[in-house]
Formats: sequence, C-alpha cells, structure tokens
Amino acid sequence: MINYPGKAKSSFTKTVNYSNRGMNLEELINLSNEYYLQEDIAVIYKKPTPITIVDASFDSHGRVITKAYFKEPSTLDYNGIYKGKYIDFDAKVTSSKTSFPLSNLHNHQYEHIKNVIKHGGIAFLIISINSEYYLLDGNDIISYIESTTKKSISYDYIKEYGIQIESKIKPRLDYIKAIDKKYF
Amino acid sequence: MINYPGKAKSSFTKTVNYSNRGMNLEELINLSNEYYLQEDIAVIYKKPTPITIVDASFDSHGRVITKAYFKEPSTLDYNGIYKGKYIDFDAKVTSSKTSFPLSNLHNHQYEHIKNVIKHGGIAFLIISINSEYYLLDGNDIISYIESTTKKSISYDYIKEYGIQIESKIKPRLDYIKAIDKKYF
Repeated sequence: MINYPGKAKSSFTKTVNYSNRGMNLEELINLSNEYYLQEDIAVIYKKPTPITIVDASFDSHGRVITKAYFKEPSTLDYNGIYKGKYIDFDAKVTSSKTSFPLSNLHNHQYEHIKNVIKHGGIAFLIISINSEYYLLDGNDIISYIESTTKKSISYDYIKEYGIQIESKIKPRLDYIKAIDKKYF
Repeated sequence: MINYPGKAKSSFTKTVNYSNRGMNLEELINLSNEYYLQEDIAVIYKKPTPITIVDASFDSHGRVITKAYFKEPSTLDYNGIYKGKYIDFDAKVTSSKTSFPLSNLHNHQYEHIKNVIKHGGIAFLIISINSEYYLLDGNDIISYIESTTKKSISYDYIKEYGIQIESKIKPRLDYIKAIDKKYF
C-alpha cells in the first residue's frame, strides 16, 4: 500500500524527527487522535484525501478505481469535537528553519479558517518547524496575513504567538493540552 | 467522471424523486451546503469517500492513482459548524416504504453518533423515505435501538420523532430549519 497524499509541496518535506521514531506529522496526529478517542477525550478524525475518479471497474474484491487524481482540499484536513467545541485544523511541515511559507496555506483553506472562526469554532494550524511543534491559532494567522505583505510567517512569530505542543508517548503529540492552554 | 460511492447497499437505491428533478439525496445536500456557505448560515462539508490506494504512478497531469478500493467510512459523511455547535450527520435513502433498515447504519457509525453526542455535538441522520425527508436525531436512534430487537426503524417512528425537512429551491433541502426546530 502506498502512502496517501502525493501532494508534493515546494519547500515542504516530510521531515524525519528522531524523537518521534521516524513518524511524520500526519502519523503522529492520527495516533494522537486514536488515543483521544480511546480515552474519551475528543472525537477528531482526519478527512480522507479528496480524489477525482476518472475510471473504475469491478474485480473479485468489488468496485476498483483504475484511474483517479488527487484534488486540492477545500477545507483543513482534521476536524471534530472537543469539550462541546467545533475543532478544525491542518498539519503543516516546513523544512525552513526560519519561517513558515504562506504558499502552503491554500487560499480556500485560509477562507475556511475565517469561516470556522466566524461561526464560533476553533481553527488553527499545527506547524512543525525546527523539530518543534506549535499550535498557531487562526486569529493569529489572520492578523499576521492582514498586517503584512510578507510571504511567510517567521519562526519568531510562531514561537511568540503559538503554543508549543509536547511530543510524548501517549499521545504522541498532545495538541489537546495546547488547545486547553489557548482556548479554555 | 464516474459517480462516487460504489458502496452498493442491499435494499438501498438512489431513488429518483420528480420534485427534486432527479437529483439524489447526496446532490441535494451538497447543493444545500453550498447555499448555507454562500449565505453565511453554516459551514458544513461532505467528507471525501475514503479509499485504500494499492498502486499509483505519475502521468502528464501529476500523480495518478491506478488501483484503489473504497473503504467503509468510520464516521458519518457530513460535518461542520452551525451557530457555534458541532454538527455531524449522514444521509440515508431507503426504498422500503414502511421502514428504515438498520443494516444501513454501520456499527462504527452508530458508535460515532454516541461519541459525538457524549462530547456535546449534534448528530443525526437525514432519512429519505416515501419521497419525504426527515431529520432523525441521534438520541432518538439510540433509544430506539436500545429498546428493541427489531432490525429496522418503522416509518411511523420516523414520522413521530423525526422532523420533516422541506424540499425547495434554495436550499434544496432546508435541513438547517429542521435543526433549528429540533435543537435551538
């Protein structure tokens, strides 16, 4: 089985971090979500990667897709519920040590963040930079983008406004603790 | 382009209803969601259908999936936010005129409904039966299932406990109005 996304992104790589045993950010979040679900802490899932099916047929296992392309998602990858609040976020990895390039936040994702906040939900990015993980709130992303013409968010800004996420055994990335700090 | 699901279900068909101009339930809900988003009423999306990729390669358009199967979803198909509340639901069509067969609600979907409610969200099914549409609240589904050994929910129960959803031009299915009636 081949790994999902395929959405290769300029200046973005799936960095291997020894402290998390070679797992990429998506895997760490998925494992954390399983933990939160098992422990009855939160109900958060990754959305399947959207595809456009061009051809399909049937084989002995049932319906089989024989040609399909990846589509750009119109929302963020993860959503769900925690303490009665709607939670919506995406995971972004940057190999740059000094900033997070905004080219990685698609326009419709940015609009989605605004919409979620407007309707009373919590929206943020989990940014992996310099082998550290930060929760950066949607409002801080919006104020930054609206106040600058810069094409990236500096590491300093992320450190100042973001909440650092602890990397541990269970859950692998305790982003709910960061949510508690920021929003509750 | 071929239509999505492929999850052919016993005793379920995509019924054509003249009043909605031949659109199936999924299309009607997707159009309604677009309307709610445009009108800034709610932010609700259908999750992409989950697949398992077996083979992929590259062609002139980029990464192309050359073999994949449909997976059973572990959640409901639609979720999002309305009036600050987490909303989670699925759309089910039955061709039976007398009842909704519970075989159509997968076990993990049933567990998901319970989880969402436990964490303070709103979970329901939109059931299309006899060319009518009903919102049936997750709690009413749970009480029914826990109090009976029957393998289907009768049309009478759906009519008594469900909220009928108006089918109109904009939005095609005004399920938010039904949400207002039931939860707000």
